[in-house]
Amino acid sequence: MPAAEKFQETIQAVRWTDGAVEMLDQRLLPHTEAYLHLATAAEVAAGIRDMAVRGAPAIGIAAAYGVVLAARARYAEDPAGWREAVAADLEVLAAARPTAVNLFWALERMGRCLAGLEGDPVPALLDEARRIHEEDIAANHRMGELGAALIEGPCGVLTHCNTGSLATGGFGTALGVIRQGFAEGRITEVFADETRPWLQGARLTAWELVHDHIPATLIADSAAALVMRSGKVGWVIVGSDRIAANGDVANKIGTYQLAVAARYHGVKFMVVAPTSTVDMAVPDGAAIPIETRAGEEVASLGGQRVAAPGVQAWNPVFDVTPAELVDAIVTERGVVRSPDRAGMAAMMGV
Amino acid sequence: MPAAEKFQETIQAVRWTDGAVEMLDQRLLPHTEAYLHLATAAEVAAGIRDMAVRGAPAIGIAAAYGVVLAARARYAEDPAGWREAVAADLEVLAAARPTAVNLFWALERMGRCLAGLEGDPVPALLDEARRIHEEDIAANHRMGELGAALIEGPCGVLTHCNTGSLATGGFGTALGVIRQGFAEGRITEVFADETRPWLQGARLTAWELVHDHIPATLIADSAAALVMRSGKVGWVIVGSDRIAANGDVANKIGTYQLAVAARYHGVKFMVVAPTSTVDMAVPDGAAIPIETRAGEEVASLGGQRVAAPGVQAWNPVFDVTPAELVDAIVTERGVVRSPDRAGMAAMMGV
Repeated sequence: MPAAEKFQETIQAVRWTDGAVEMLDQRLLPHTEAYLHLATAAEVAAGIRDMAVRGAPAIGIAAAYGVVLAARARYAEDPAGWREAVAADLEVLAAARPTAVNLFWALERMGRCLAGLEGDPVPALLDEARRIHEEDIAANHRMGELGAALIEGPCGVLTHCNTGSLATGGFGTALGVIRQGFAEGRITEVFADETRPWLQGARLTAWELVHDHIPATLIADSAAALVMRSGKVGWVIVGSDRIAANGDVANKIGTYQLAVAARYHGVKFMVVAPTSTVDMAVPDGAAIPIETRAGEEVASLGGQRVAAPGVQAWNPVFDVTPAELVDAIVTERGVVRSPDRAGMAAMMGV
Repeated sequence: MPAAEKFQETIQAVRWTDGAVEMLDQRLLPHTEAYLHLATAAEVAAGIRDMAVRGAPAIGIAAAYGVVLAARARYAEDPAGWREAVAADLEVLAAARPTAVNLFWALERMGRCLAGLEGDPVPALLDEARRIHEEDIAANHRMGELGAALIEGPCGVLTHCNTGSLATGGFGTALGVIRQGFAEGRITEVFADETRPWLQGARLTAWELVHDHIPATLIADSAAALVMRSGKVGWVIVGSDRIAANGDVANKIGTYQLAVAARYHGVKFMVVAPTSTVDMAVPDGAAIPIETRAGEEVASLGGQRVAAPGVQAWNPVFDVTPAELVDAIVTERGVVRSPDRAGMAAMMGV
């Protein structure tokens, strides 16, 4: 995968540089590549909330580095009582976005780490954040191999939203499988939904695919079923923001509609996400909180109102795809085919 | 239907005024209401091709008035040989858009009319174009009654693209049913897909619904399945650009995806179109020419490139919904439930 490796070196959604979090401002892509320099946990939380960074794994990594910033500031203020103060920062970070469980997973992991620290907590916390980051990249490569192996190909695939280097620590989840599958000759071309209202497909996924010289075609979200009917795609491959214990999958709005269309056409449906996305405490999709953002995001384009004045808009950011529509969930620990409660529990080792 | 009647008086997509065709430039809506003044058939053809007017019935009406302009100019040039010259104008009008059969239907009807004329052809042709226009409005009201009667309600409905006064001679096809159904208390609210890439739902349908005080919620196209899953809609109601002899329905891209999702959710699917949209010469949907427009329409928003540089986009403007996914086709001649070749032939009287 020379192209994929090269890309990963070039672009990182989140990185720790000179004692601060640098966050690629994805709202400006593909036209402008600019990093936000975030020196406080509150700034990191704002970057997550306002979608400078997005993608469940990348959000978790950003939050982990945010905890380092929080601990550094609180420890400098009060070397004795810093832990209590950091607890408030953790809550601010946790409140940034409700649906992606990787955020809470990363914060819990950082919380467990800081609980046992004596003296300056920063070195140990930074190590832990970096481990979270590196483990995510490693998980993505492992998922790339596992997921690509499912594709008997050669065939085209269809993907939704952005699940690549920009959404993760690097390489990507669903887009990691696509990179690996293309490198192995199993995938011939990619159809990328534009993914309204934020256009992550048009702006981000298309950008990553062009960069890696993977043949890509951008389509309107509503053209996906027509692509499936054409016989040009064998798999739909998507990421996830939270997977319930029964295999129900929360992901970007439109994923469910794709899963319904895929089943109708006999196209296989693959979900690719690290185990940090799996929330065994949530029994099924109905219990996953689904973020609804301002209707203006649908009624506007590029900051300009396009919809008729006076019309209300509904902007659910995620939806839940029931496990029965999913052919395979791929994590770094293995593949769950036709996911259900038993299969998920076996994969998670619980 | 006081609100609907009022709307119809206010807005006309196409009208004949002072010897010219006036075409509401729908590309500028909802922010600017401006009419193009078109004095030649070539200008009318350009208005159709460049989508100043859209909607299959409105395109047909515009073309009919365009024939009047053509005949006036050719007769003035050559009172003996004008018919031959008009034939070339008819071809230019016919070439403006390939999918909507109403265009060809209107041109054929005007062609039959002009074939028998002696002397100045303008008065008779203008009468015929006005009849086409008025018959379309009457057909829409009849379809509104027939379609609304199918809705046992009260329930919400979901619609796609724009099928209202702006897409027709007035009142609308699918939106006419919605207007009538709302007036009768059968329809409680409307979910309107934004309809990428041209956003006819956000710009035009939302505008008509707000104008008529019909409770409306704009959604991203990919949120439609989630709305269906919520149980908030009992029917999907759409228009058509061409209906084949077996009941297959060509309509705006995304219609097919909606039909697949509707069937999965047990939501009923209604197609509303005048018989001028039915093309009994086309055996099935596979034989309907589907217009593909420039990929840049998907890669750009409001004239500004949003997609990553270098990515290609595929922009099929229509898709075909197979008859098996359609619960009812409503025309001014009646309702065909579970449409098939026999049902369509019986309704068309052939």
